[in-house]
Amino acid sequence: MPYPLTLATMLQRNRLLFGKKEVVSRDFSGIHRYTYADYNVRVAKLANALKRLGVRRGERVATFGWNSHRHLEAYFAVPCMGAVLHTLNIRLFEDQFTFIVNHAEDAVMLVDEDLLPAVEALADKFPTVRAFVVMSDKKIVPPTKLSPVYSYEALLDAETGECDWPSLRDENTMAALCYTTATTGNPKGVPYSHRGIYLHALAICSADVLGIREADAVMPVVPMFHVNAWGIPFAAAWMGSKQVFPGARPDAKALLSLIRDEKVTISAGVPTVWMGVLQLMEREKYDVSSLKAIICGGSAAPKALIEKVEKGFGVPFIHAYGMTETYPVVLVSRPKSYMKDLPEDELYACKGKQGTLVPGLEMRVVTEDGAEAPRDGKSMGELRLRGPWITEEYYREPERTRETIRDGWLCTGDVVTVDPEGYVQILDRTRDLIKSGGEWISSIDLENTIMSHPAVAEAAVIGVPSEKWTERPMACVVLKPDFAGKVEGKEILDFLATRVAKWWIPDEVVFVDAIPKTSVGKFAKRFLRDRFKEKLFA
Amino acid sequence: MPYPLTLATMLQRNRLLFGKKEVVSRDFSGIHRYTYADYNVRVAKLANALKRLGVRRGERVATFGWNSHRHLEAYFAVPCMGAVLHTLNIRLFEDQFTFIVNHAEDAVMLVDEDLLPAVEALADKFPTVRAFVVMSDKKIVPPTKLSPVYSYEALLDAETGECDWPSLRDENTMAALCYTTATTGNPKGVPYSHRGIYLHALAICSADVLGIREADAVMPVVPMFHVNAWGIPFAAAWMGSKQVFPGARPDAKALLSLIRDEKVTISAGVPTVWMGVLQLMEREKYDVSSLKAIICGGSAAPKALIEKVEKGFGVPFIHAYGMTETYPVVLVSRPKSYMKDLPEDELYACKGKQGTLVPGLEMRVVTEDGAEAPRDGKSMGELRLRGPWITEEYYREPERTRETIRDGWLCTGDVVTVDPEGYVQILDRTRDLIKSGGEWISSIDLENTIMSHPAVAEAAVIGVPSEKWTERPMACVVLKPDFAGKVEGKEILDFLATRVAKWWIPDEVVFVDAIPKTSVGKFAKRFLRDRFKEKLFA
Repeated sequence: MPYPLTLATMLQRNRLLFGKKEVVSRDFSGIHRYTYADYNVRVAKLANALKRLGVRRGERVATFGWNSHRHLEAYFAVPCMGAVLHTLNIRLFEDQFTFIVNHAEDAVMLVDEDLLPAVEALADKFPTVRAFVVMSDKKIVPPTKLSPVYSYEALLDAETGECDWPSLRDENTMAALCYTTATTGNPKGVPYSHRGIYLHALAICSADVLGIREADAVMPVVPMFHVNAWGIPFAAAWMGSKQVFPGARPDAKALLSLIRDEKVTISAGVPTVWMGVLQLMEREKYDVSSLKAIICGGSAAPKALIEKVEKGFGVPFIHAYGMTETYPVVLVSRPKSYMKDLPEDELYACKGKQGTLVPGLEMRVVTEDGAEAPRDGKSMGELRLRGPWITEEYYREPERTRETIRDGWLCTGDVVTVDPEGYVQILDRTRDLIKSGGEWISSIDLENTIMSHPAVAEAAVIGVPSEKWTERPMACVVLKPDFAGKVEGKEILDFLATRVAKWWIPDEVVFVDAIPKTSVGKFAKRFLRDRFKEKLFA
Repeated sequence: MPYPLTLATMLQRNRLLFGKKEVVSRDFSGIHRYTYADYNVRVAKLANALKRLGVRRGERVATFGWNSHRHLEAYFAVPCMGAVLHTLNIRLFEDQFTFIVNHAEDAVMLVDEDLLPAVEALADKFPTVRAFVVMSDKKIVPPTKLSPVYSYEALLDAETGECDWPSLRDENTMAALCYTTATTGNPKGVPYSHRGIYLHALAICSADVLGIREADAVMPVVPMFHVNAWGIPFAAAWMGSKQVFPGARPDAKALLSLIRDEKVTISAGVPTVWMGVLQLMEREKYDVSSLKAIICGGSAAPKALIEKVEKGFGVPFIHAYGMTETYPVVLVSRPKSYMKDLPEDELYACKGKQGTLVPGLEMRVVTEDGAEAPRDGKSMGELRLRGPWITEEYYREPERTRETIRDGWLCTGDVVTVDPEGYVQILDRTRDLIKSGGEWISSIDLENTIMSHPAVAEAAVIGVPSEKWTERPMACVVLKPDFAGKVEGKEILDFLATRVAKWWIPDEVVFVDAIPKTSVGKFAKRFLRDRFKEKLFA
């Protein structure tokens, strides 16, 4: 029986080696700061409190909160006591929220005080939840209709800082549960095992992935309610890095202040975060010299953003790719050592791709006819993955598991190319590709090109039925406020004419007020498709 | 059934991403150089050739060779075909060599051409070996009494570069086998699993351990026949680092030339290697500016060496600790970020310790009465380990397994202290500690202090029976050639008087011509103890 890979080992190393290092949270009263020594005592107290609330091994403990030290306490306390950390996305639509809590059968829910209204509105529909716990600095529960309800701090006060952690012999025990919205039907739960979290964390600490180390101050801007903040809090605690949590609704000013004041070295977030940060930096000066890497994923980062971050921050912009089903890190884009002297445009073309496979995983790119796509940077195929942190099932969904996981490979639904150096570029979701005259057009590529036009704030490209070509692209464009009403579709099309193949140029540009978004901030193109489904190009 | 952790994944990533990177070997005709693309073809050919020689899954394939590209080919070909890589130490005494080959029941033996005489002398005693393969550039077998015997290059020539690798479903399959000399009795074999090698490799790639990355040029000076060159070849191939192999009997000149010419960034070896290199650098100038880390383990590095390397090379000296039973890396000494501003002597005192536990392992330090030793930097206890790359058995030795692995913990036999920051210092082997008047004296500490005397080349301290104190230390000292016959024992004792506690000062200094060494270059103190066992201090 080999030694099991569990979060208990990771937490223990943090406790024994890094007691002096800090955990910093931006909260409503300013900056909260304590050490990992304090942290470990509170993690033990939280586990004891949850036991006292009757949480048993294997039960789900939900969190509904921002990035904070309390959330980090739950990250280790819940799995190490043998229960399952279920991070709820606070931006879910009501019906999804209700579905997920009931599908997961959450037993206890930890809720940030400022997010209570969202939970109160639906609490009647959560029959499995036996206790609500309000996370705030106060030791009393604010007025609320939730019941039974407890104060997080009062619960911890009542416990000792020593915990009799259970011995988890089976590393395949579920440690966490993350839901992902699905193209059709209800959200799907992805169970994360102790083994998978451990291996993912170790892999992202390797020098060529994120290279997280003790000397780092790591600030995950990506929410802790979204794919475990890309696994960064687990890795950073294990390696003893300082952690910096930006709290509720952080804006660019808050993020830049934290980077400057806490000497953040690594930060991670989606492209829109960095766009906002850059915009502020153009107006106000912040010292960001502590940064050594910006990690960006969630959706494809436009090349213009990558260049601006590298030149504005003077640090490497690390483009990454993953999904809920993959814990999530799969691809990381770092040019190889012998590519450093490439002409700048080729270097940025490489950085604009999602990158090469991180150590530990295997991938295949499968064409429509089931063959392996050549690694020529042009041939498209669906990305398929397997490895120790690629999920092998959806939670309690055998049917949907069979649809997506075939012969042990996760079918990602993402259409990609692979170049001869092994760099993968995500072109589209299979459902977002536009098939015109028998050839594929990448909607993402078109969108990024349109968004490099100085007047454009956002753009989404969808396929619209065409008698002659099957489908033709249509661009839905949001102009920046200063340009609203001053730009015509023809200008966008002319702009594209020198930048993409002629047959890729959309048949029409439609100006819209906003692009609808999913709960995790991605373009929700199905709403656009619904709106324009009657359209038919000749 | 979770996705198995095997060397096949590691090799595949090397093949798909790093085909252009180089593997460089110093050999008898100069420098041999090829790419990982070539390498992968030859690995497949080697696996095919071994299959043709009848090697079956689980059988042992022995190597008897220097650090070279052919040795690296065997490192992956043998485990990936489901067989077991058994690296024989070329410096073994004849009876140990014979015992090990027969205990392992090696089926095939790959032998470097210049090492043939050592194998020829004993081949009659190797009944299980069905084929000898001579590794050299030549495609013909030199005159030899070995039989049946083949040329490595001729075997590869006859095969295709595609291999139908087996699917290894069980990650606990044995991948390698390393023997370690024992205090008493025959050498003991340590089986290395695919899982263990994979996890050890990933851990040493993490930024705070060795941080091996694609941009590195890694030169293991530590032999590939000794604990798999500390696992570095596996990790470097996985990450796509250039590898540089110093070949047969590399001297300081060869090593420094390789560092300069191949722009080596990380090199690893025992203290004596670096002492020799430093001595040459004092006489001749070499450009070593490519180096970013020197890894040193195998035995404790004297503080003077650490300082000289850091100041002479201008790069961090990473002190490490491990043993055959631990694949081997367990401890790595890097000062924490907040220790960087310590006074120089405190910083070097920290670097002189073996370091903190690498991520993934657990340790205990157990005193004579079975309690956990306080982490005060003073209390001594035996280091005990467990984790995914700590062996759980000796090969075919259930009795000796039970002696050493208790309740799942490997009892290392090393006596250590742990300071409040978690840095472990190896004081001695349990059997080398000297018990004087009820207190322990560390022979290693005394030796290192004596070796910092400018006239001393080497020193070993042993315990000699004493009526009054049970044991008292005696120093066996080798003087440097220039000082031979010119230094008296009193000078050494006076030197110690200001440097160690009074009761640690040896009762006698004996000058000897040389300190006897084991097959892996460590002091073989049992020979000294035998020689002086009649001695009795009052």
